[in-house]
Amino acid sequence: MDWQQVIGLIAGGLISVSFIPQIWKLFKLKSAREISLPFTLLQLSGILMWLFYGIILSLSAVIVTNIFNAILISLIIYAKAKYGK
Amino acid sequence: MDWQQVIGLIAGGLISVSFIPQIWKLFKLKSAREISLPFTLLQLSGILMWLFYGIILSLSAVIVTNIFNAILISLIIYAKAKYGK
Repeated sequence: MDWQQVIGLIAGGLISVSFIPQIWKLFKLKSAREISLPFTLLQLSGILMWLFYGIILSLSAVIVTNIFNAILISLIIYAKAKYGK
Repeated sequence: MDWQQVIGLIAGGLISVSFIPQIWKLFKLKSAREISLPFTLLQLSGILMWLFYGIILSLSAVIVTNIFNAILISLIIYAKAKYGK
């Protein structure tokens, strides 16, 4: 892996890791009133499009991190559905 | 601009646009208790790293959309500082 892809992995990794404290907070508070549903759905759409972009340009960092991001934002959507009233 | 960069612009554009209803919601509710501060700061770090990645690989879609994302996530950090108790 070249160093540019390492930069991409760090970038994508930071985005992926960022979702974890947010998911933790929503499930701990059992509340997601302040989370915008359009935010979560547009994030998921954008993440899936980045995944497609990564595939067509063979950018491994973009592909790997956006697979994780799709799973993590889905957990936020689940929290919103469960606790978002 | 080639069609791959158009896919990237749509992907990044969806992520950028996603922040708008979230910012709107926090300022309307005047509350950001459920927003995780580590989430916002890690997002900003990741966005700045994607910007760097876009610059070193000359990916125009990555550069343009991550400039917008950096500004938008900064507004969420501001909302968290102001309303996050």
